[in-house]
Amino acid sequence: MTDTGGIASDQLRAFVERIERLEEEKKVLADDIKDVYAEAKGNGFDAKILRKVVMLRKKKPHEREEEESILDLYKHALGMDSGRE
Amino acid sequence: MTDTGGIASDQLRAFVERIERLEEEKKVLADDIKDVYAEAKGNGFDAKILRKVVMLRKKKPHEREEEESILDLYKHALGMDSGRE
Amino acid sequence: MTDTGGIASDQLRAFVERIERLEEEKKVLADDIKDVYAEAKGNGFDAKILRKVVMLRKKKPHEREEEESILDLYKHALGMDSGRE
Amino acid sequence: MTDTGGIASDQLRAFVERIERLEEEKKVLADDIKDVYAEAKGNGFDAKILRKVVMLRKKKPHEREEEESILDLYKHALGMDSGRE
Repeated sequence: MTDTGGIASDQLRAFVERIERLEEEKKVLADDIKDVYAEAKGNGFDAKILRKVVMLRKKKPHEREEEESILDLYKHALGMDSGRE
Repeated sequence: MTDTGGIASDQLRAFVERIERLEEEKKVLADDIKDVYAEAKGNGFDAKILRKVVMLRKKKPHEREEEESILDLYKHALGMDSGRE
Repeated sequence: MTDTGGIASDQLRAFVERIERLEEEKKVLADDIKDVYAEAKGNGFDAKILRKVVMLRKKKPHEREEEESILDLYKHALGMDSGRE
Repeated sequence: MTDTGGIASDQLRAFVERIERLEEEKKVLADDIKDVYAEAKGNGFDAKILRKVVMLRKKKPHEREEEESILDLYKHALGMDSGRE
């Protein structure tokens, strides 16, 4: 590993290996998350809706409520009201 | 373009060019869609919510209503109710 | 469609329908592109590599060559040289 | 939290919180990965090419070499040869 056009091979290798280790850990977590959704589904919950709830919880309550009220307005204007209203 | 390892160069080129033409047309449409959202925004509509409405309209009404009622249930269970209820 | 909280329902509906028409056309093109790849595959071409070639052709030749020479350098430094060199 | 339409609120909340914790850890790792790329860039490496190297290393050597030789063939057939060949 001498003729590398002036590249610091060891440093490059160190960066690549650090990235690969972190990506491996990230993959494990992604799999863990999938497992929790699968477990929730196995307990009768709807995984798709659960995913939506998790996404909605990232928003501030007032932000979420404002978006919901605009959405309701648009749906009403387009005749997309559900029976509950 | 004779020594191409047995590849039918002309045929390959024809496929690539057909794909490129279609991708170009697709890009024009994607830009058109962006323009309509921008125009809607310029007329006072919320582009993000509009995007959501378009997405919701792809679902069948009963499907959409069922998902909404499960979502409401989960939100209620988690104390995420908005003031409107 | 009168009580819509001040929303211009007709205007909203017009925006939504324009978006839906454009999205429909875009979907047709996306399907056409898929069909060309499938046809290429049916003629013995590798669709994945074809996709890569289409992507590479979007870059300017000198840009593509520069990226390739850096990539070769890094691969060489990491001992990822293929047998052809 | 009693009237929840038969939903096991505590169980739902436990699932949501487990997911949120895992997602938080995953986000930390994603940020760490970004930091390593930034550090590599600060040391003179090309982050985009580095990303490509990391991706290529996920493939088996013979798989990578086969893909590269098909790509070279297609590029040659389309007159996209770089000067190095």
